[in-house]
Amino acid sequence: MRKSVIRELLKVTQDPEIISFAGGLPNPRSFPIKDIEGCIHNVMENHGEVALQYGTTQGLQELREAIAERSYKECIDIQDDDVIIFSGSQQALDTVGKIFLNPGDTALCGLPTYLGGINAFRSYEANLTGIPLDKDGMRVDILEETVKKLLKDKIIPKFIYVIPTFQNPAGVIMPESRRKKLIDIANEYDLVIVEDDPYSKIRFDVPHIKPIKAFDDGGHVIYMSTFSKILSPGFRLAWSIASPELTRKMIICKQALDLCTNTFTQFIANEFMRRGSLDLHIMKLRELYKPKRDIMMNAMDKYFPDGCTCYKPHGGMFAWATLPEGIDTELMFLDAIKEKVAYVHGKAFHVDGGGERSMRLNFSYSTDEQLDEGMKRLGNVIEKKLEKRKAVL
Amino acid sequence: MRKSVIRELLKVTQDPEIISFAGGLPNPRSFPIKDIEGCIHNVMENHGEVALQYGTTQGLQELREAIAERSYKECIDIQDDDVIIFSGSQQALDTVGKIFLNPGDTALCGLPTYLGGINAFRSYEANLTGIPLDKDGMRVDILEETVKKLLKDKIIPKFIYVIPTFQNPAGVIMPESRRKKLIDIANEYDLVIVEDDPYSKIRFDVPHIKPIKAFDDGGHVIYMSTFSKILSPGFRLAWSIASPELTRKMIICKQALDLCTNTFTQFIANEFMRRGSLDLHIMKLRELYKPKRDIMMNAMDKYFPDGCTCYKPHGGMFAWATLPEGIDTELMFLDAIKEKVAYVHGKAFHVDGGGERSMRLNFSYSTDEQLDEGMKRLGNVIEKKLEKRKAVL
Repeated sequence: MRKSVIRELLKVTQDPEIISFAGGLPNPRSFPIKDIEGCIHNVMENHGEVALQYGTTQGLQELREAIAERSYKECIDIQDDDVIIFSGSQQALDTVGKIFLNPGDTALCGLPTYLGGINAFRSYEANLTGIPLDKDGMRVDILEETVKKLLKDKIIPKFIYVIPTFQNPAGVIMPESRRKKLIDIANEYDLVIVEDDPYSKIRFDVPHIKPIKAFDDGGHVIYMSTFSKILSPGFRLAWSIASPELTRKMIICKQALDLCTNTFTQFIANEFMRRGSLDLHIMKLRELYKPKRDIMMNAMDKYFPDGCTCYKPHGGMFAWATLPEGIDTELMFLDAIKEKVAYVHGKAFHVDGGGERSMRLNFSYSTDEQLDEGMKRLGNVIEKKLEKRKAVL
Repeated sequence: MRKSVIRELLKVTQDPEIISFAGGLPNPRSFPIKDIEGCIHNVMENHGEVALQYGTTQGLQELREAIAERSYKECIDIQDDDVIIFSGSQQALDTVGKIFLNPGDTALCGLPTYLGGINAFRSYEANLTGIPLDKDGMRVDILEETVKKLLKDKIIPKFIYVIPTFQNPAGVIMPESRRKKLIDIANEYDLVIVEDDPYSKIRFDVPHIKPIKAFDDGGHVIYMSTFSKILSPGFRLAWSIASPELTRKMIICKQALDLCTNTFTQFIANEFMRRGSLDLHIMKLRELYKPKRDIMMNAMDKYFPDGCTCYKPHGGMFAWATLPEGIDTELMFLDAIKEKVAYVHGKAFHVDGGGERSMRLNFSYSTDEQLDEGMKRLGNVIEKKLEKRKAVL
């Protein structure tokens, strides 16, 4: 295993003068501190002795019920027994890896894809085969070709890892038709889909699209989402929704991982939902992040040289920019740090070694002023890099 | 992987009429709810935006500093950089498994030993070789013989898993001389010792003995302890102390497991320590648990038939009883449940299939009345079992 690029970057970027577009952090000013304190007071008053004790491995039943109820509104028709509360999505990804992957096994993922997923799956010595994305997310036609080819070679892919909504890092959304096609493929070839959905609530200017899990008539989808982006990452709370058989396996696996998820923060999150505060908070997050997305996109227009392209994300936390031919964003990173601005280079999200011209830019964490100033610095860095390159040619 | 016996038992024992000696739970009345609320108020006031955010994988620096300082008092001379904060000891055990164990590898542990350790290590398909205990803990003479024999067969044991103080489940303490001998063995054969120390602070009537790590002049010991037994298990906070090389590896591993430990409860635990509340609370726990230990031991004298033996634990949370020949505590468990009393049968703690006459009895969780009544019920169950057996013979 190698140290996660993002975690390493986080260290570099602890210099307070650096404007960091590197992390995937919510804006700290968004945290509903007073509301959470109110919830905690209630939890301590009424459930203190249970909230500070060990809990069941599957997670607090009231919280699982609340999640099942919310899921029903998204057309995922489940019971609380189908939900597991994990210590963050990363643990859910690790659990998927631990259940499915032996050394040398193959799993499929996007090109690009979330690097925490890459880390989790590679820690089980799996081979990850990348499926290219376009503006509508994972290319399901190439996916099907790849599956056929693998099966012909007697390789059964253990699962397909997909982030269908506001994909990390690419920002794109998979339309409903493609989601249905994914289910068709899963049904036809009896494959598991791991649907990672941390961002769908952080939606600015597109209609809601049902999760892949909503179309899952064959029980092939392991859905996962998290409180990290819509409440607090410090609480380390995420959840999975899967078939009874897979849920049972994941619970057994989680027992050996950490016995149970933090009971105390589960109680707080449950109280926060019970009060109806979560939906209000999500609305506030949209209002906070949408202008930030706009500032970043406008600044890119203003400061980035010609030849840079970027898909405008309609939600989530990231913009994904591609720079002109000849620039390696991994090498350029040191120049950027010198100019006090940080990003994550595209290769980190590519399982095939590609992505050298791309970079992921987070717009949720920085202040509005930092967003403009940081993009200005980054534009300069790119400009200089291009000039140097011209001088050489 | 099979479902953890304890977790399964916990489900059975959710019947409120059952008096459960099965879990390893702190007494819920011990939780310092008001003090914790005070800490939370301070954390929210002064660190809200950081406490609700992602943290570093290694853990909150202030908390690691506080732990390093406490460790120094125990003659473990370390820096905060040698500490990792884990999401509970189980995660530290899982991390050790993930780093050291490939399928077919061998690790050594006590006979009996903590079943969460067995679960974690077996999930990596390791072979666990048991080393018998006596009243002074692991038999280091047998350990050395076993190591020699394994090495002769070209099998290098990946580590030795030891719980030296108030061993779970046996309750025994390893004296200093044997701890030093363990270090000698580790140094001579270049072996890793995993020292699990959740209970040493829950000490009633014996002097403190330095941890094995205090004698570790060769950097062979991975020490781990937890806030679960001395503050709150719901907070899911534990820590490791190890050499820089092993610490680095464990951090990389933890990145893929869950990115970081719960930031919020780390801040709370740190504030609790900063105020000097932890040592006071530990004193209260000793005062609460010592009479409970006495009630259980007295009740055992009173209600258990002749031929039952039990080592009187001088700390921790468990008594370990051995019943007369011919009783299988796993089979007897159903009778016990019918009589509304629960325990964990001895086989669960044995990697060699042994322990059928033994049982682990927790004395920290129950009320004083429940302790007496539960032991009475259990005495009856054993009595009946012996009578039935006599009738058959």
